[in-house]
Amino acid sequence: MTHERASGDGTSVDQPRHPRAYTSDLPVTGAWFPGDPVGNRQFAPVGSGRPFVLEGGGVLSDVTMAFETWGELSPAADNAILVCHALTGDSHAYGESGDGHATEGWWNGIIGTGCGIDTDRHFVVCVNSLGGCQGSTGPSSINPATGVPYGSSFPTVTTRDIVRCQASVADHLGIDRWLAVVGGSMGGMQVLEWGVMFPRRVRAIAPIATTLEATAQQVAWSAVGRTALALDPRFRGGDYYDAKPGDGPFAGLAIARAVAQITYRSAEVFDDRFARDLVDPRELFGQWDRFQVESYLDYHGEKLVRRFDANSYLVLNRTMDLHDLARDRGSMESAVRRMAGLPALTLSISSDVLYPLPQQEAIRDALRAVGGRCDHHVIESPDGHDGFLLATSEVGSYLAGFLQEVGGS
Amino acid sequence: MTHERASGDGTSVDQPRHPRAYTSDLPVTGAWFPGDPVGNRQFAPVGSGRPFVLEGGGVLSDVTMAFETWGELSPAADNAILVCHALTGDSHAYGESGDGHATEGWWNGIIGTGCGIDTDRHFVVCVNSLGGCQGSTGPSSINPATGVPYGSSFPTVTTRDIVRCQASVADHLGIDRWLAVVGGSMGGMQVLEWGVMFPRRVRAIAPIATTLEATAQQVAWSAVGRTALALDPRFRGGDYYDAKPGDGPFAGLAIARAVAQITYRSAEVFDDRFARDLVDPRELFGQWDRFQVESYLDYHGEKLVRRFDANSYLVLNRTMDLHDLARDRGSMESAVRRMAGLPALTLSISSDVLYPLPQQEAIRDALRAVGGRCDHHVIESPDGHDGFLLATSEVGSYLAGFLQEVGGS
Repeated sequence: MTHERASGDGTSVDQPRHPRAYTSDLPVTGAWFPGDPVGNRQFAPVGSGRPFVLEGGGVLSDVTMAFETWGELSPAADNAILVCHALTGDSHAYGESGDGHATEGWWNGIIGTGCGIDTDRHFVVCVNSLGGCQGSTGPSSINPATGVPYGSSFPTVTTRDIVRCQASVADHLGIDRWLAVVGGSMGGMQVLEWGVMFPRRVRAIAPIATTLEATAQQVAWSAVGRTALALDPRFRGGDYYDAKPGDGPFAGLAIARAVAQITYRSAEVFDDRFARDLVDPRELFGQWDRFQVESYLDYHGEKLVRRFDANSYLVLNRTMDLHDLARDRGSMESAVRRMAGLPALTLSISSDVLYPLPQQEAIRDALRAVGGRCDHHVIESPDGHDGFLLATSEVGSYLAGFLQEVGGS
Repeated sequence: MTHERASGDGTSVDQPRHPRAYTSDLPVTGAWFPGDPVGNRQFAPVGSGRPFVLEGGGVLSDVTMAFETWGELSPAADNAILVCHALTGDSHAYGESGDGHATEGWWNGIIGTGCGIDTDRHFVVCVNSLGGCQGSTGPSSINPATGVPYGSSFPTVTTRDIVRCQASVADHLGIDRWLAVVGGSMGGMQVLEWGVMFPRRVRAIAPIATTLEATAQQVAWSAVGRTALALDPRFRGGDYYDAKPGDGPFAGLAIARAVAQITYRSAEVFDDRFARDLVDPRELFGQWDRFQVESYLDYHGEKLVRRFDANSYLVLNRTMDLHDLARDRGSMESAVRRMAGLPALTLSISSDVLYPLPQQEAIRDALRAVGGRCDHHVIESPDGHDGFLLATSEVGSYLAGFLQEVGGS
């Protein structure tokens, strides 16, 4: 493997681990843009033309949400389930890839006919988060005030801002009250905020593999990834959209992804899958010779840069660090008390080191402490945090039981 | 906090998290150079003037080891203990800071008068590893063939190369046989290699918080850190020694350090120390506003760049990925069999997530399986992997007992 030497003028940047990964025609962002195939997307405006003021003080005009739906809304509009996506997810929670959707549905097997979230019975909605890059307003969107993408000027977003945008989509669809709001990881943070912000617009909540507030270690992991991303000279401080194809912050985004990817899985899974296998058994002692596990991380990085936007990664990742259900609500207890009337289900993955078991126990205990009801199950899986995406049969089964109960049908 | 925008020409690089950390007079490397205060260092040549051929095939001329000693070598030369340092350690295992030593001894409290490794009774030696940057030959050393620092041309080093250099220091000091070879983490890998490579030159070994072979997850963590470091445009592919002060790969090295630092500690310690405290309680919603845990990581990064060299970090970190006691020895069993005659002590830190308990159990079990003797103790500590540096009283106490027994005095 050739180790390209930096020229020092910033135009040829040292990317020793990725000499082959990024082709010269790779778009600088994996964002979806108007004019791209729409696929299953629908769109809804937020704020009825008024500026949207964010919790952190930023202001956005002309906010649009991209969302998808599956199944039929009942005449009483009482069978709607909002599914909230995780950090690098988008509205395509269910379905095939292709036609505007880079990947298949991230919760296929959990959503679908006869699945835990049954599209024959439920009207399922998934909204691309504010700050995302798959059709909802985000850093890659055109700032109407300037005519160019927001880039570095995109304001800080919080989970509460995202939830308010999701509520606008509910309004748009004529849904006064969700049967349930469901999601894992970053999505689970939104589920909890739904319970606190709009307890009368939700009948039940299922926050999965998530936490009441981001912990110092979670912040540390996120921050390191973001800092590494921003170190990529091709990131250009966030204003890279006018760069040539092939010249985007791919390496930076891939490193942020790699840091995260390790925390998403477990030592056990890595050992089982990769052990100490080499990419090329004859290449061990070269400075950048690689083990299979490195190739795996590169592969996931390369996959992500093809469908995601570096700035969206920063914005959404930061919403997770800012997640604190108690903020400006006096105390965690007073925050949780607002959703005490909602039946809740939380799930843990036994091997999750990023959002470990005690954090879901804390959700359960906090709800029970204020007289609420919260079921809690631990899914035995070696897959780490990603188990909430991979253990489809267990997650689906627990969700099915919960929805049946709260839905009364 | 001002978010410096990249200028796009590569001269002004986005370092949003470190706008104040690196002064314009900071040397591009924290390496020690001839002419700097010698402090407690001594020096020994390796190879008697012959080229030193590395396991990976590289060749070095004029290899020098910097080392330190404490205590007195007995007339029989039978009271010598070799202490092996971890990734960012150096020969200064014991003593004060100042006078050529940027930090105090990294095992103060374990080494010293009346301590676990008692300098009143033992002759203690610590050698800066080959590839390091505190006086031993490494990437920041002048390549005699070119008259400029090796930089990117420094060859791949393995634990076995490091151990051979340590053996040269033993020769230099007239030590045929160590009473014990002791070390944690990367140092523990060297301890194990001593047992296998030179079983007749060691009476006992104490590999602490280490492993028989680097696992896929350990490789993954290391590789991500190295890749992030190399992404820093100021790294210049490894040839940054002629850059201006203030223009070194500080941010890249700091990120590699930050990734590692998180794995060295535990979620529990981070929660206890930092919770969700902000650097400035009034600054939360700015894009690069920071939590205390981020400031802590920056602080450790900044500290490291002042005393370490980015290339040395890459070289030594890679020795850890390459660590595999079984390589070219048929099997792990046949490798371990070579040291079956040596009494061994291994220690685990209960909260170590990087070199977790099962890995020291594996050392113990491998030795016992071939008829060897291995004591194993678990030190209860919330400090994670760093517990081998921080739990001085427990580590020292177990070492004292072990040395008393094997030393017969």
